[in-house]
Amino acid sequence: MSTQHRVFIAVIGAGGVGKCFLGQLADLAARRPATRLSLCYITTSKKAVYNKDYSDISITGALDSLAASTQTPLSIPAVVDYLAAAPAKVVLVDNTSSQDVADAYPLILSRGISIVTPNKKAFTGSYKHWQDIFTSAATSGAKVYHEASCGAGLPLISTVKDLVETGDQITRVEGIFSGTLSFLFNSFAPANPTGAAAGKWSAEVSKAKELGYTEPDPRDDLNGMDVARKLTILARLAGLPVESPTAFPVESLIPKELESVASGDEYLEKLPQFDSQMEELKAAAEKEGKVLRYVGSVDVTTQTLKVGLQSFDRSHPFAALKGSDNIFSFYTKRYGNNPLIIQGAGAGGDVTAMGVTGDLIKVLSQIA
Amino acid sequence: MSTQHRVFIAVIGAGGVGKCFLGQLADLAARRPATRLSLCYITTSKKAVYNKDYSDISITGALDSLAASTQTPLSIPAVVDYLAAAPAKVVLVDNTSSQDVADAYPLILSRGISIVTPNKKAFTGSYKHWQDIFTSAATSGAKVYHEASCGAGLPLISTVKDLVETGDQITRVEGIFSGTLSFLFNSFAPANPTGAAAGKWSAEVSKAKELGYTEPDPRDDLNGMDVARKLTILARLAGLPVESPTAFPVESLIPKELESVASGDEYLEKLPQFDSQMEELKAAAEKEGKVLRYVGSVDVTTQTLKVGLQSFDRSHPFAALKGSDNIFSFYTKRYGNNPLIIQGAGAGGDVTAMGVTGDLIKVLSQIA
Repeated sequence: MSTQHRVFIAVIGAGGVGKCFLGQLADLAARRPATRLSLCYITTSKKAVYNKDYSDISITGALDSLAASTQTPLSIPAVVDYLAAAPAKVVLVDNTSSQDVADAYPLILSRGISIVTPNKKAFTGSYKHWQDIFTSAATSGAKVYHEASCGAGLPLISTVKDLVETGDQITRVEGIFSGTLSFLFNSFAPANPTGAAAGKWSAEVSKAKELGYTEPDPRDDLNGMDVARKLTILARLAGLPVESPTAFPVESLIPKELESVASGDEYLEKLPQFDSQMEELKAAAEKEGKVLRYVGSVDVTTQTLKVGLQSFDRSHPFAALKGSDNIFSFYTKRYGNNPLIIQGAGAGGDVTAMGVTGDLIKVLSQIA
Repeated sequence: MSTQHRVFIAVIGAGGVGKCFLGQLADLAARRPATRLSLCYITTSKKAVYNKDYSDISITGALDSLAASTQTPLSIPAVVDYLAAAPAKVVLVDNTSSQDVADAYPLILSRGISIVTPNKKAFTGSYKHWQDIFTSAATSGAKVYHEASCGAGLPLISTVKDLVETGDQITRVEGIFSGTLSFLFNSFAPANPTGAAAGKWSAEVSKAKELGYTEPDPRDDLNGMDVARKLTILARLAGLPVESPTAFPVESLIPKELESVASGDEYLEKLPQFDSQMEELKAAAEKEGKVLRYVGSVDVTTQTLKVGLQSFDRSHPFAALKGSDNIFSFYTKRYGNNPLIIQGAGAGGDVTAMGVTGDLIKVLSQIA
């Protein structure tokens, strides 16, 4: 049968991660002649490209086709109908952070369409939504993989799954989940200070923003919610029915007085007035020979999750982190006192897309 | 069809790893009702249990059945014929370190039988044997997974595969591959000395043997060949056609004069005479503020592999390792200057069996 080794690929989102993914997809299609990867739908929030007869869209030409397209995106129910009627199996690659797309995952999966995605929102809604996603997939046989929803391409979710599925018990996970906050604290409170003195907190935040390490409004990193979302995902995979990322304590690093100022720029302008707060915390840690780090942790045994500042000995792996790296320690029954540790870049277009492409390869090995 | 979701499992080896694997297999079978995991063959080097009509052997009772069995193991060609004639797909779990079984992998795979294994020998023979294994698998569609052949259950081989298959370029891998040598150097040359002074080299080797961290003859760890084998596997996966584990420099830690003494006991007895050699190396490193570690490394770009002693700054992740942990740094084009690091226990029955069981789950997801 001519369709036996054909798989349709639909891509939603063509931003930073989406562009990197398209490059990796073109490469994968070229190196995998046994499966015909047929791009049948690609869309940004404004434009789309698709053919009603499901004829292939050139992967290498997809961005140009999008730019030239006069087609508008289909509504989500219409996309689902279009994909469910394709003459071979379909993988939807959701490279957005869209809540609307995330909300439709149970529907998409129930129609037999597999999903690979870095979209955190799909896995950090209510616990019921989480259950709906995996129940829909189990019922229809569609696959759902989301390695890049935490730590980009680092093999975190696959490792947690392997631990759990082989019968290990995860007792505790802790980590530095945010590349932005890793960079900030590695600069502000280095474990091995070099000649140059660290700047004041506000200066470090401004520097991180200039270097592109923060969101346009740095408060979107400093409120800790991104860390809380990623922690929710790992905790759920480890077996805890966490209701939502707001169901446990999350320490915001935004001074109360600046929470409601109108813009990120105004926040940065006023931040120096509050530098003494962070300086005091840093000095208190130093007095004990320690350094500050912003950490997410889940104690599975006591069902306790928390996100916030902690102090670590200078010899601790969390203290020695470099640049904007992430680090995750998995304590399990089998691994005992010394955790399984995974560390490396946890953000960036190429490494995030790598998590997505790696998931796609896993799905293809099961459905193609 | 009644056989549609049945998979036959054959297990060779019921030693330390094999026993742990059987426990995990029983657990897996209980948690995975959709697939009937039918144990159809189990063998040690002396005894076997199997039924000519392929009726299920109880997994939980397998060790007792083996103990009570009067059946002797089939020859390898006979095992292959028996398994190839099974009325559903078959996964062979090779929990041995047998060269004979390893030599038969291309034959086994060519008959459509999948393999999961921690057996290093299969992947460290000639480069032609390596190619034969993967060519046989690709041709027949059988799967071959060997996560636990390096670093036990740590997700190393899956990570290297993901990096390569998604189009990243691994430029360098370095690591502490041996739990034994990790333990020895963490004790002999600690990065953060505690009150108790480290013992002489010979005393540390004796202590490691007493604690069960070494092979019965510690020279089997100290000759570096175990590290060379694991490095060969990672280097081949990273794309280098390494001819064999003896095709590159491996520094032995056995004094020349003790290489040919008759027994491990005689070696340990005479080792104190040579303590000054290792003390000098340690002192030279300390003079530079560094500590000694026994490292395997491959520079993919220059195609250079080596195994031996190196000195590291006390703040380096290799210096801060604890107990008998392994650590591996993967430098790639995408990850840039800061490597992807994976660390944790790299030996032990349960974590090794976990690598095998995790692979079995991956194979089942593709063939069941």
